[in-house]
Amino acid sequence: MQFEITKEYIDAIKVAIESGDETFIKDSFADIFPADTANVLYELSTDESIAVIQALDDDLAAEVISYVDPDTRKDFLKNFDSQKLATYLKYIDSDDAADIVNDLSIKEREEVISYLEKVNKQTANNVTELIRYESDVAGGIMAKELVKTNVNWTVKRCIDQIRIQAEKIERLYSVYVVDDEDRLLGIVSTKKLLLTPDTIPLKDIYEPDIVSVNSYEEVSQVAELIQKYDLEALPVINVQGRLVGRITVDDVFDVIKEKAEKDIQAMTGISESIEEDDSVWTLTRARLPWLIIGMMGGLLGAKFMGIFESSLVAVPAMAFFIPLITATGGNVGVQSSSLIVQSLAANYLLEDSLGKRLLKVLMVAALNGLIISLLVFGFNYILGQGAALGIVVSIALFSVILLASVLGTITPIILDRFGVNPALASGPFITTANDLLGLGVYFSVAHLLLG
Amino acid sequence: MQFEITKEYIDAIKVAIESGDETFIKDSFADIFPADTANVLYELSTDESIAVIQALDDDLAAEVISYVDPDTRKDFLKNFDSQKLATYLKYIDSDDAADIVNDLSIKEREEVISYLEKVNKQTANNVTELIRYESDVAGGIMAKELVKTNVNWTVKRCIDQIRIQAEKIERLYSVYVVDDEDRLLGIVSTKKLLLTPDTIPLKDIYEPDIVSVNSYEEVSQVAELIQKYDLEALPVINVQGRLVGRITVDDVFDVIKEKAEKDIQAMTGISESIEEDDSVWTLTRARLPWLIIGMMGGLLGAKFMGIFESSLVAVPAMAFFIPLITATGGNVGVQSSSLIVQSLAANYLLEDSLGKRLLKVLMVAALNGLIISLLVFGFNYILGQGAALGIVVSIALFSVILLASVLGTITPIILDRFGVNPALASGPFITTANDLLGLGVYFSVAHLLLG
Repeated sequence: MQFEITKEYIDAIKVAIESGDETFIKDSFADIFPADTANVLYELSTDESIAVIQALDDDLAAEVISYVDPDTRKDFLKNFDSQKLATYLKYIDSDDAADIVNDLSIKEREEVISYLEKVNKQTANNVTELIRYESDVAGGIMAKELVKTNVNWTVKRCIDQIRIQAEKIERLYSVYVVDDEDRLLGIVSTKKLLLTPDTIPLKDIYEPDIVSVNSYEEVSQVAELIQKYDLEALPVINVQGRLVGRITVDDVFDVIKEKAEKDIQAMTGISESIEEDDSVWTLTRARLPWLIIGMMGGLLGAKFMGIFESSLVAVPAMAFFIPLITATGGNVGVQSSSLIVQSLAANYLLEDSLGKRLLKVLMVAALNGLIISLLVFGFNYILGQGAALGIVVSIALFSVILLASVLGTITPIILDRFGVNPALASGPFITTANDLLGLGVYFSVAHLLLG
Repeated sequence: MQFEITKEYIDAIKVAIESGDETFIKDSFADIFPADTANVLYELSTDESIAVIQALDDDLAAEVISYVDPDTRKDFLKNFDSQKLATYLKYIDSDDAADIVNDLSIKEREEVISYLEKVNKQTANNVTELIRYESDVAGGIMAKELVKTNVNWTVKRCIDQIRIQAEKIERLYSVYVVDDEDRLLGIVSTKKLLLTPDTIPLKDIYEPDIVSVNSYEEVSQVAELIQKYDLEALPVINVQGRLVGRITVDDVFDVIKEKAEKDIQAMTGISESIEEDDSVWTLTRARLPWLIIGMMGGLLGAKFMGIFESSLVAVPAMAFFIPLITATGGNVGVQSSSLIVQSLAANYLLEDSLGKRLLKVLMVAALNGLIISLLVFGFNYILGQGAALGIVVSIALFSVILLASVLGTITPIILDRFGVNPALASGPFITTANDLLGLGVYFSVAHLLLG
C-alpha cells in the first residue's frame, strides 16, 4: 500500500520527460497518492518537475502542488503564469490556495484573483477573505470548506445541503449548526446524522458544548486546543460569533513541526530557517551571528584573563583546567535551561513561585556539584596535581555549577516574560555567558586562595 | 467556550473536598470538558484528586482518567483497587485501557482483567489482545474501536451495523470494508454513506486505494504516514491482511511530542525522561552521566595541556585564548550536527552522497572560518596582542572550525547508521569531543609556530 521512491523509478520518469512521453508520465502517477508524487518532484530538477505537472490533469496537478513544501512551492510556482495558477487554485483547498496567493507579488496576486473570479467566483471570494489574515493567527490557517446548516432545518434538509456544499470537502466529520444570524451554535457529527431519522430537526440533536476559536487567536493556541481536546477539526468564529472557517488537524501538524524546528534552531545557534540543501552563502549567513557572539565572548574572556596574567605566570597549571570549568558551566546551563523551556511549553500548569523553583534548582545543583567536585578532586590527587590547585579547581567547579544552574533557570523565564522564544536560552547565548561566568569564578577563587 | 483554571476555582474545589461536599464537586465539573478536569487534578494533591474522581460518575471519571498524563496516571491509579479500575476501564477506549493495564503489576493486571471479563467481555478481550504489543509499534498504539462492514452488505445494513458497533466510538470518520475472511479491502466515508441510497451495495462505493499499516510497524513510521497523507485515522492489519485495529490522529500527537522531547533531552545532555517537578534525586541522576562525561573530557584536556606546559610557561598569554578556541569548536559542531539531524528526520529524501555533503560542509566552514579568523586577528591587532600569537590563534580557529564541522556532520550520520538517536550528537558528546579537538589543534599550531 505504501509507495517507495526508488532510483529506477526516478530514472524511468527522467527518461520519459526527456523523450516527451506524456502518456507514460501520466500513467506512472495515476496509481500513487498525490503526496507521493510531490515527494518524487523533490528528486527532479525544476524543469523536470514542470514537465510532470504539465503532463498531469489539472485537478491532480493542483492536488500534488498542495502537498509540496511551501518554501519549495513558492519558487516552483514562479514558473507558471497567472492564468495557469488560477486554474490550479480552483481545485485546491482555500487555506492552501490563500497561502499560495500570499506568496505572490502584488501584481501577480491581483491577476490570479481576477482570473479566479472568472472561473470560480466562490473560490475567489474565499481566497480574498483569507489573505487578509496574518499567517500566525487562526484566520491565517483556517479553510472556508465546511458545511453550515441552520438550526431550524431537519436532518433531511441537512443531508441535502451536504450534497450541495460537500462536493469540495474531502473530510466531513461533522456539520456546523448556526442560527439565522450565522452565529455558531454547535455541531452535529456525521455519525449522528446517519443514525437519526430524516424528519428530526437539528435543534433536537446538535451538540452545543463545543470548542471554537476566534479568528484572531494565535496558531500556537489553536495547536494546543486541538491537542488538549483531541479534536479533528476546530470551528473558527469572528468577533460577532459568526462561523467563518474551520481548522483541521493536519494544519496543526505544520504548526507543531515549525515550532519544534524553530526551538532546535534557537538552541543550536542557527538564525534562519535553513535546510541542508540551501546555498553555501545562506548556510554561512545563518550560522555567522552566533559564531560572532561566541567570538566576542571568547575575546572578552581573553581580555579578562589578561588581568590575572600574574597568577597564570605563577601557576601555569591553572590554564590546564580552563576547559573543564567552562565546559561544565556550559553543560549545566544548557541542562537547566532546557528543563525550564519544557515546563514553559506545558503552560497549563499554574506557575510555581520562582523562589520555590530556584530552591529546588539549587538543591539539584549542589548535589551534582558536590559529586563532580569530589570526583575531580580525587582524580587530581591521583594524577599528582598540587593540593592547593586541586582545591581551587574543585571549589570553582562547585560554584560554577551552582551559578550556571541559576543562570540557566532564570534566563528562559525572563526571555519568555518578554515574549522572546525561551529556547534561545539553551543555545550559544547561555554557553557564552557561562564561559565568562566560569572564568570569573575560577580566577577569583584562585586569586583568593593562591594569592 | 474555553476554560481557564483560576486560583479561586481551585480554592473552591479544595474547600468542597475538605468539607466532603460531593454535590458541589460534581456540579463544578459537570459543565467543563474532561480534558480540563484532568488539568485541574494536576493542581490538587493526590488525596484531593482521589476525592474528585470518586465524586464523579464512573463514566465521567473514566474519561477524565484517560486524559491524565500517563506518567502521573500510573502513580495515581495505585490508589484504586482492581475492581474499581475494571469499572473505569469499561468506559475507556481500548488503547488507553491497554496502556493503563500495561502499567500495573502482573498480579493486579490479572485481577483487573478477570473483573473486566465479568463486567464487559468484549473490553477484556480487546485489552488482552492489545497488551501483547510493544508500545513502540503500530499494534501498541492502535485501538479496537472501529466499525467493520462486509463488502457484500448494502448501505442500509452498514448503517444498522454502525448503530450496533458505533455506540462506543466517539469519532467515526469512515467504516472499514472487509471480505469474508476479514481482510481489509477499503473504506467508505460517513459522508459517502450519508449521500448514497440505502439499497446500494458497499462494493459499488468503497474506496480501495487507502493507506494501512502492519501491526508490527514502528510508531515513528505511523506518525510519518499520518502526516504525509494528511490522514485522520489509519487502519492496522496483521500479517494475514486482516483488519485488527485503528490508529487515530490524536495518538500520533503523543508520538511526535515524545520524539521531540527525546531529541531535546539528547541534545541537552539529560539521560532520562524527566520533568521539572520530579524529585531532586531523579533530576540529579538524569544530569550526572553527561556531566561526568564532560568532566572526563575536561580532565583529559588538562592532562593533554600538561604535555605543553613549557609552551605555556614561555607564552602565558596562550591560555587567554583557550575558551575562544573551545567555544567556537563547540558552537560550530552543534550547528553542523543539528542541521544533519534535521535532514535525517526528513528521510523521504534520497540520500546525497556523503562526499558531496562533506564538500558543501567544508565550503560553508571555510567561509565561516575565514570571516571569524580575520575578525579575531583584527581584534587581537587592535588590542595589541603579539602578532605571532595572533597568527597562531587565527590559524587554530580556522582549523578548528573546519574540523568541528566535519566531526559535527559525520557523527550524527554514523550514530543514525548504528540505530542510535542522531540528536545525541548535538549534545554534550560533540561539545566534549570538540573541546579536545580544539585544544589539540591550538597547542599543535602553537608548538609548530612558536616552538
